[in-house]
Amino acid sequence: MRTSDQKEGLSVPKTMKAWVLDGPEELRLVEKPVPEPGPAEVLVRIDAVAICGTDVEILTKGLPAWVKGGLPFHKNFTPGHEYMGTVVKLGPGVDEYEIGDRIAVEIHAGCGRCERCRMGMYTSCLNYGLNYGEQNKGHRANGFTTDGGFAEYAVNHINTLVHVPDGMSDEEATLIVTAGTAMYGLDVLGGLIAGESLVVTGPGPIGLMSVAVGKALGAQPVILTGTRDSRLNLGTRLGADHVINVKNEDPVEAVKRITKGRGVHYVMECSGAPNALNEAMDMVNRGGRICLAAFPGEAVPVDLAKLVRNNIYVFGIRGEGRSATHRAAALMAQKRFDAKLIHTHTFPLEELPTAFKYFRERIGDAIKVVVKVH
Amino acid sequence: MRTSDQKEGLSVPKTMKAWVLDGPEELRLVEKPVPEPGPAEVLVRIDAVAICGTDVEILTKGLPAWVKGGLPFHKNFTPGHEYMGTVVKLGPGVDEYEIGDRIAVEIHAGCGRCERCRMGMYTSCLNYGLNYGEQNKGHRANGFTTDGGFAEYAVNHINTLVHVPDGMSDEEATLIVTAGTAMYGLDVLGGLIAGESLVVTGPGPIGLMSVAVGKALGAQPVILTGTRDSRLNLGTRLGADHVINVKNEDPVEAVKRITKGRGVHYVMECSGAPNALNEAMDMVNRGGRICLAAFPGEAVPVDLAKLVRNNIYVFGIRGEGRSATHRAAALMAQKRFDAKLIHTHTFPLEELPTAFKYFRERIGDAIKVVVKVH
Amino acid sequence: MRTSDQKEGLSVPKTMKAWVLDGPEELRLVEKPVPEPGPAEVLVRIDAVAICGTDVEILTKGLPAWVKGGLPFHKNFTPGHEYMGTVVKLGPGVDEYEIGDRIAVEIHAGCGRCERCRMGMYTSCLNYGLNYGEQNKGHRANGFTTDGGFAEYAVNHINTLVHVPDGMSDEEATLIVTAGTAMYGLDVLGGLIAGESLVVTGPGPIGLMSVAVGKALGAQPVILTGTRDSRLNLGTRLGADHVINVKNEDPVEAVKRITKGRGVHYVMECSGAPNALNEAMDMVNRGGRICLAAFPGEAVPVDLAKLVRNNIYVFGIRGEGRSATHRAAALMAQKRFDAKLIHTHTFPLEELPTAFKYFRERIGDAIKVVVKVH
Amino acid sequence: MRTSDQKEGLSVPKTMKAWVLDGPEELRLVEKPVPEPGPAEVLVRIDAVAICGTDVEILTKGLPAWVKGGLPFHKNFTPGHEYMGTVVKLGPGVDEYEIGDRIAVEIHAGCGRCERCRMGMYTSCLNYGLNYGEQNKGHRANGFTTDGGFAEYAVNHINTLVHVPDGMSDEEATLIVTAGTAMYGLDVLGGLIAGESLVVTGPGPIGLMSVAVGKALGAQPVILTGTRDSRLNLGTRLGADHVINVKNEDPVEAVKRITKGRGVHYVMECSGAPNALNEAMDMVNRGGRICLAAFPGEAVPVDLAKLVRNNIYVFGIRGEGRSATHRAAALMAQKRFDAKLIHTHTFPLEELPTAFKYFRERIGDAIKVVVKVH
Repeated sequence: MRTSDQKEGLSVPKTMKAWVLDGPEELRLVEKPVPEPGPAEVLVRIDAVAICGTDVEILTKGLPAWVKGGLPFHKNFTPGHEYMGTVVKLGPGVDEYEIGDRIAVEIHAGCGRCERCRMGMYTSCLNYGLNYGEQNKGHRANGFTTDGGFAEYAVNHINTLVHVPDGMSDEEATLIVTAGTAMYGLDVLGGLIAGESLVVTGPGPIGLMSVAVGKALGAQPVILTGTRDSRLNLGTRLGADHVINVKNEDPVEAVKRITKGRGVHYVMECSGAPNALNEAMDMVNRGGRICLAAFPGEAVPVDLAKLVRNNIYVFGIRGEGRSATHRAAALMAQKRFDAKLIHTHTFPLEELPTAFKYFRERIGDAIKVVVKVH
Repeated sequence: MRTSDQKEGLSVPKTMKAWVLDGPEELRLVEKPVPEPGPAEVLVRIDAVAICGTDVEILTKGLPAWVKGGLPFHKNFTPGHEYMGTVVKLGPGVDEYEIGDRIAVEIHAGCGRCERCRMGMYTSCLNYGLNYGEQNKGHRANGFTTDGGFAEYAVNHINTLVHVPDGMSDEEATLIVTAGTAMYGLDVLGGLIAGESLVVTGPGPIGLMSVAVGKALGAQPVILTGTRDSRLNLGTRLGADHVINVKNEDPVEAVKRITKGRGVHYVMECSGAPNALNEAMDMVNRGGRICLAAFPGEAVPVDLAKLVRNNIYVFGIRGEGRSATHRAAALMAQKRFDAKLIHTHTFPLEELPTAFKYFRERIGDAIKVVVKVH
Repeated sequence: MRTSDQKEGLSVPKTMKAWVLDGPEELRLVEKPVPEPGPAEVLVRIDAVAICGTDVEILTKGLPAWVKGGLPFHKNFTPGHEYMGTVVKLGPGVDEYEIGDRIAVEIHAGCGRCERCRMGMYTSCLNYGLNYGEQNKGHRANGFTTDGGFAEYAVNHINTLVHVPDGMSDEEATLIVTAGTAMYGLDVLGGLIAGESLVVTGPGPIGLMSVAVGKALGAQPVILTGTRDSRLNLGTRLGADHVINVKNEDPVEAVKRITKGRGVHYVMECSGAPNALNEAMDMVNRGGRICLAAFPGEAVPVDLAKLVRNNIYVFGIRGEGRSATHRAAALMAQKRFDAKLIHTHTFPLEELPTAFKYFRERIGDAIKVVVKVH
Repeated sequence: MRTSDQKEGLSVPKTMKAWVLDGPEELRLVEKPVPEPGPAEVLVRIDAVAICGTDVEILTKGLPAWVKGGLPFHKNFTPGHEYMGTVVKLGPGVDEYEIGDRIAVEIHAGCGRCERCRMGMYTSCLNYGLNYGEQNKGHRANGFTTDGGFAEYAVNHINTLVHVPDGMSDEEATLIVTAGTAMYGLDVLGGLIAGESLVVTGPGPIGLMSVAVGKALGAQPVILTGTRDSRLNLGTRLGADHVINVKNEDPVEAVKRITKGRGVHYVMECSGAPNALNEAMDMVNRGGRICLAAFPGEAVPVDLAKLVRNNIYVFGIRGEGRSATHRAAALMAQKRFDAKLIHTHTFPLEELPTAFKYFRERIGDAIKVVVKVH
């Protein structure tokens, strides 16, 4: 861990080590130029970066843009979006951050000029991916459409930065963005969840952080469903009042049992299971709300009649909008929950493939695998 | 048409003619007691009542409660919920309405004592259907769980009433509740739709009223999709800027064409077609919102990934909450659109089965079939 | 403290001791009939009741209704609204609570039939005060327009009840309603205050609870202003990050100093000081929001230009709407803050005048003075 | 009037005529360089520009920035913010507009990088005025902190542009921004105003446009107060259901009379009269909302107790945020009201001082005085 006053030694080299993805499963460590921050941007020395399920998607299937063919092909692309580091260079006009500041990141910097961005909906930027050539509108989704964090340095728009609280380790700070996604999901569900009942389905990192953030904001009860007791136990330690192993008990029945038949107000769906939305609709009561932070790989049968008959709202979220990362970082600075619990493994940058292997194969019950860069 | 000062002759008999539904397709005309209004209730002399698609659902499948078995069996049940009439008797303590007032109705009177009702979400009342015996919580969904309008008289909670504007015919006034559903859908989509783009899928009564209300509030463009040119032409007369016959053109392609590739902000889904939600997700741009006012009869494949990747929100609505009927009635009083265009046939109360036949078989291109009672 | 399973011995007498207010400063202990709960109501055996600043207003100036002359004169009126107790009798149709349940209360039960109540704004009920005679619309503001808690028993609408968490003392439970007001204020300010900056002006009970609830929800920093160090110290114990004694430092300057010139997002004004709104407008940054939970006794000069130039919103709140008391009780059940810190004195029911004296003259630095009834 | 396909002859000179304000009342016509559009900006050939009350404020008192001393002194400053014109040059990367497009403007382009802008609150930009030298954050308030429209050309960020509907005259198009302010005010009041009651106080341009937009959105009744019958008559033509000349009748009494004692839901305060807020608080019913679009020149006595006791919210607005100008332009394109009614006089650019004289002295009952530039 570094403190923000250790600002010496922040000289920036001309080139850096970076992993690039040439195509599906073609990850390669290269030496490439350290990028230069533009207006409203900073250069970040990556100190640590975590692996997310979406990174595996990108690794195995290519970038969303590749898949869609919508973007110009971008050889030399560096993935990785759950990173934190140290500001080492300021773009023109930046005084919001100082050299030496420790920061964590969120993914999206909207273009600031489409109608969604103007209204504050920057994760719905209509110029998504347009950061190249004549179509450059300034949108950034670091690790998705612009270079990310599996490297020694990365450029970030200042809108994607939050200060890392003093005393927080690099590894824990990589989880701020994960907690930010959870916070964003709870925001779109209404935000006022103290005393309201919440089911989180799927104890992956976002699910576990949803438990933690939901409890920190006072949700009651918080119920977590999953298939592995080790994960569910972690959920308990992060604030779940009840855990349900769906191998042992039907989750809808269990929720009804726990809530004495009333159902819950909110479901955060973080499993991507094919029947998850149908189950969520059976878990909430009339007027309930469901946030989808995960999704099945293909179209699944959904009983839409339930949505209509019971006035249910379903919110798809991508990333962590509405400055939710800022709010999540504040809760972590106040030590409202121990995000470190979901950090299980650490590898150096050179061993990124091994890190991915651990993550993908859940070796040693891996949850958050962190790559330590500096 | 009657004016509100024709208050003479409002004496109320002891018994009345009423259609009752003994079971699926078992509609029977009986003589039954005129009900008595309780506190906060009035007795309405039904002047006209329209047939809604949901009435056919009830007629053919039984009440939702019968299907679910959740309610005590209720022989002698009178369906019909799109009615208007004249206040002929006031329950204790009622001074919000006067005898002789012409009123239209919305369906739901919440219990006023569950947590949804307390927050104003009375269409999500958690005591839905509880209006009988020891479980009587005072919830009413007239024509669904409490006696409705295919009769000479009905009791209504004052919360379900709106004044019928002077000069509006009885037949047109039965459409206030339909316009109210459309207004409610636009409300949950955000409400601020002047200059925003709106697709309405399905030119049934709610779809056509969604076109009319959307245009009255300034939506631009308003695009209507459907399969029959006669209905689409009506849509044009009610305010649609573009109509798409999906037999001739792929609706997603057409929406992209009309919006120059941008997609729309909002979709009101009023068709219940199996693929409607998937198409709607392809019609809206990132951050777009979809309201489901109709639904397929069974579970259908839905590509949930699109909801998540594009930050799309989906709102199921039941009925017409948030006092939307009041706002819709105001637009109709101001003659912002000509709801009468969708009224096609009129029958007397005695001929309800014929009216149903016309509606179900779309005889004479029936849209709104009205039963004139007084 | 009693636990909820001590349900024996809940027999209800015919008459009870109750304080009544005949006119300003005319408080008198009488024997009067125990009231009978109606539909959707329960009879509460008062266990404890706290004194609020508004009780002093009522004691010295008469009821708002007396002042306005709007209500029929109501001799035998019993004030007191911050109470808790035990359900001892259920009105017809009530199964939401059981005899023996320990409950705390909020003040307002809306009529459920005006346009504000229908939309969930029950503290803005348009039938405020109408609970008598021919104009009875069912509105209750216990201790304001209907009999309150300085008595052995009181009737409450079930909408005004929250369960008292197991293990919470009677004295602490009287503070749930105070925390509910604070929660409501934070709700109307936007609710999503984790990591946002908050100034609370005035360390009375509502101000102190605003500090506690704001901190529990993650506000950062929380700044409290006041004139007495003892109160400010309590604020620190309840979660304030900074306290400002306005006798020593200009509060606007201090807020600017603490926030490095940026100002804060939110101000909860709980002092009623004549210049408080002007100062609050100088404390918030552009787009900031101010909640007024207190007010000066007469019109004061306000520089409205600041509201307009800086896009500031000002929210007056009365009581504790939007089910905020429920959310506040949940935070207290989860022991997010120690509300007991503001409870300073306890007296038996017979000594209510002495309790008032302690509260009004701040004898022994009295904050919350509780009257223990059973 | 020009149509958008008259794109010939859009060559841009090196210098242009422009009025500059050296200090209070020191307006001078100069020749100065035509500015160059940067990224996300366009150069606009001013076709017409209207005079606003705020222009008079600036003319007589200097810029807000001069008054505050907060900005670097800016000699050569060109005021004027209610303009429209033709895009004649595109900054780098702009393809949202084409050369030859006719556009109207709103005032504020937020910095896009402060926390308010990120959330879509660009009229509350925390970098207000920072468009110069080292502190350049890119904020623009054209005619306030950056050069405006009393000139032949001006630079605009694309976020401040809306297309002028085909067939609309230049003069009418200058009123789009005024209607945008009215729309914004109605938005912050809640937006769903069909059938709700609205008082507009003060029949200046914003007040009259508030009547027109409110009526276009279905408000009912719309009541306008003022002191001059000629203005009130215009209000009637723009959609007011009732007008109140406050010289003849107390406006609070009149509102009570018209609403049968109920009061109204919303007040748009556009007069800046010293007692206007107090009167507005007496006009709205409990839970009512008030938007302040104008303000008195100095602090005025306000009875804050009413805000608190009646749950009233007060919203100060500056300019026209939330893309309201876009929505207002849509209503005008749909000819929902005749904004031209408030345009009374036209002068050429050279006669700006005369135009100001007419506006200030209300010569010929001047309302909107337009300067025609090209």
